[in-house]
Amino acid sequence: MTRTIGVALLGLGNVGGGVVKLLEDNAAAIAARLGATLEVRAIAVRDVDKANRVVDVDRRLLTSDVEGTLRRADVDIVCELIGGTTLAKQATLAAIAAGKHVVTANKAVLAEHGAEVFSAAERAGVDVYYEAAVCGGVPVIRVLREGLASDRVESLHGIVNGTSNYILTEMARTRRPFADILRDAQALGYAEADPTLDIGGGDAAHKLAILVNLCFGTIIDVAAIPTDGIDIVEPIDLDYAHQWGYVIKPLVIARGHGDPVTGPIEARVHPALVPASWLLADVGGAKNALYVQSYALGPSMYYGAGAGMLPTAMSVVSDMIEIGRNIVAGVAGATRPRPAQPRTMMALGDLRTRYYLRFGVHDKPGVLGQLMTILGAHQISIAQVVQDGRAAGPEPVWVVVVTHEAREADVRAALAEIDTLEVVRQPARLIRISGDVSRA
Amino acid sequence: MTRTIGVALLGLGNVGGGVVKLLEDNAAAIAARLGATLEVRAIAVRDVDKANRVVDVDRRLLTSDVEGTLRRADVDIVCELIGGTTLAKQATLAAIAAGKHVVTANKAVLAEHGAEVFSAAERAGVDVYYEAAVCGGVPVIRVLREGLASDRVESLHGIVNGTSNYILTEMARTRRPFADILRDAQALGYAEADPTLDIGGGDAAHKLAILVNLCFGTIIDVAAIPTDGIDIVEPIDLDYAHQWGYVIKPLVIARGHGDPVTGPIEARVHPALVPASWLLADVGGAKNALYVQSYALGPSMYYGAGAGMLPTAMSVVSDMIEIGRNIVAGVAGATRPRPAQPRTMMALGDLRTRYYLRFGVHDKPGVLGQLMTILGAHQISIAQVVQDGRAAGPEPVWVVVVTHEAREADVRAALAEIDTLEVVRQPARLIRISGDVSRA
Repeated sequence: MTRTIGVALLGLGNVGGGVVKLLEDNAAAIAARLGATLEVRAIAVRDVDKANRVVDVDRRLLTSDVEGTLRRADVDIVCELIGGTTLAKQATLAAIAAGKHVVTANKAVLAEHGAEVFSAAERAGVDVYYEAAVCGGVPVIRVLREGLASDRVESLHGIVNGTSNYILTEMARTRRPFADILRDAQALGYAEADPTLDIGGGDAAHKLAILVNLCFGTIIDVAAIPTDGIDIVEPIDLDYAHQWGYVIKPLVIARGHGDPVTGPIEARVHPALVPASWLLADVGGAKNALYVQSYALGPSMYYGAGAGMLPTAMSVVSDMIEIGRNIVAGVAGATRPRPAQPRTMMALGDLRTRYYLRFGVHDKPGVLGQLMTILGAHQISIAQVVQDGRAAGPEPVWVVVVTHEAREADVRAALAEIDTLEVVRQPARLIRISGDVSRA
Repeated sequence: MTRTIGVALLGLGNVGGGVVKLLEDNAAAIAARLGATLEVRAIAVRDVDKANRVVDVDRRLLTSDVEGTLRRADVDIVCELIGGTTLAKQATLAAIAAGKHVVTANKAVLAEHGAEVFSAAERAGVDVYYEAAVCGGVPVIRVLREGLASDRVESLHGIVNGTSNYILTEMARTRRPFADILRDAQALGYAEADPTLDIGGGDAAHKLAILVNLCFGTIIDVAAIPTDGIDIVEPIDLDYAHQWGYVIKPLVIARGHGDPVTGPIEARVHPALVPASWLLADVGGAKNALYVQSYALGPSMYYGAGAGMLPTAMSVVSDMIEIGRNIVAGVAGATRPRPAQPRTMMALGDLRTRYYLRFGVHDKPGVLGQLMTILGAHQISIAQVVQDGRAAGPEPVWVVVVTHEAREADVRAALAEIDTLEVVRQPARLIRISGDVSRA
């Protein structure tokens, strides 16, 4: 007789519905792969009487009793799909305390309370898997943990927020302003009613913290990650970027400096100009991708759907299968996370990169000279500069600059000085330039 | 005391050297991940006295006694890096018979004798891992087996031969003829002295057979895979492709038809025109990539170095780590391959795709009409056609056609008929068109 592994779902929204569907559709294939079957024994929901669920489920599986569900003896794996951090964190820790293995897609809980969750799991001897938390259906966690197990990651560049990528892609395609595209995206269901976490970079910062923990073996404070939202990008920036061979992408970036085990970590979240010839520049729409530079492999990239019912559910079920295999093999809970090293975060002021700067000035002779003089005085070397034609109306004239590599603190000091000039009509706009210029 | 897992290498060329180097460089990280150390106990080489090895190794590890090495009690994992099929297959089977787990990068052995190797491994209760056999350092085997464990692959498009991709990329960049680029590639070490297996598509067909086995659960006869080499591409084809928004890439393609478990399998290896806007079109140089279409995840892509000392060695060592974890957990040899289903291969004549056709004709009025009439009579509908300007010299005039989707048998019949026309000066050139036209 085949062994049966009991699963409980906490939450039955889109992803939960997808999990139920995949478990049913692929039951035979999963059983063949696992040498056991995965059976949903309970689904905890807020309202058991809610109509119009994503999938039809046996009503007897539904319960509003989360604690009772976590204590069930016939449940081996708890799948946390509640979202948010308060109840989700509490349920995750309670499941672990009850000796259940956990699959979660909750990046916020892992990014903000990962240390607590993983040390609880280690004490309890249970597995916590979280493939769906970063890049949705693309198995980047598994690739980094196992595929590159004998390698050493040097840097990461990722597009990990589909909403931001969708909005910037549409802005580039149509040159319509951010607010308009956002409104359309909300109407289409590509953006939440409250889009702050997506477009402000908070969601991406959560995912970056998880990646940094995995690749650089350290826990960083999400709140300390320098984070710019995509709302700093205006259509005119896309015009200049395009003209100079760049595309603007919503990136997460991490890089190890100095000693590979103890050196400082650079981590940041912001829209960036990337060379149009770079593979990551071609990741459009709501798609996600992670571009990894590692010691042995060199550059590699992993691309696909970062969200959506079935892609996310697929990652969750693949995690359940892996835990199921561990259970069958009698080694569940034996996966030791790499012990976290304390590593400092590099100060943003110490960052050295290239910058795109846009200045709105009065159209007067000598302005360009004033700007260039101040930039030069701060050791900022200019690669390209363009000054717009004369404007008759109240609009400022744009001076747009691309710098060679410069130190962020120097750039910030220069901009602060420039912003006080009488000829300047609005604060300077800064977008960092990133990425591998070598052709994919 | 930490447990030590003994490793024997068969072969100490580039990849073997890389394995020794990575094991040394990353010893601490590997031990942390594994909870055990991996130690090279023996390296079997043809000539123990050979000078100028890729890496310095303790001379006492070297031996020319393969059989003795395989019998050593202190060896748990044998890493087959010999290449070729005769001795490599024999050594692999002997290692398995001796109860050793095997890591191999040998696509030829797996593609041609995979059924024998895997059933021997199952009987002996040992693991056989082969991440490095396809796409070198990119962990596509692990992604397909574990990352997409709960998904169902519908189709694959891959660039899996770096030499072919390098040559076509350089041809597109410089418009120089195939033979010239090949000569340069040989001088630079990017192509073998005998490049037949690479440029003829044989190496790619081996890798495709492995992917088909993994994704579609069936064993196909490598010799039965329709295979065209990249030498069918001339610079003029790159011109027309470019003009119409295509790039020519050396592809492997597989797709399941009909029933997902028992339906026929389409598998083919050939250079193809792909839309320049497709992500796979941007995979240049010697890089590899696999583009997967699966039921739950939709499109996903995995990109990176398909060859080279360290990338390949990285995959080999990651496999050793995974086997090591299985050994530590006491579950080595428990991985059951999905039982192979007999599935028929779709006949190439039944393929429906789009075609690029180039005809070399005498410059006479009415030629185009003759060609179009014959194509139409064979149910081939034309999407685009261009006829070159008049040629004064002995060169033929080119008529180039892009078809809508058509049946290969119809296209072949039409071409056979056209080739007999008096106005035709050389046999028609056919290149298939592939790929997702939706923007990445």
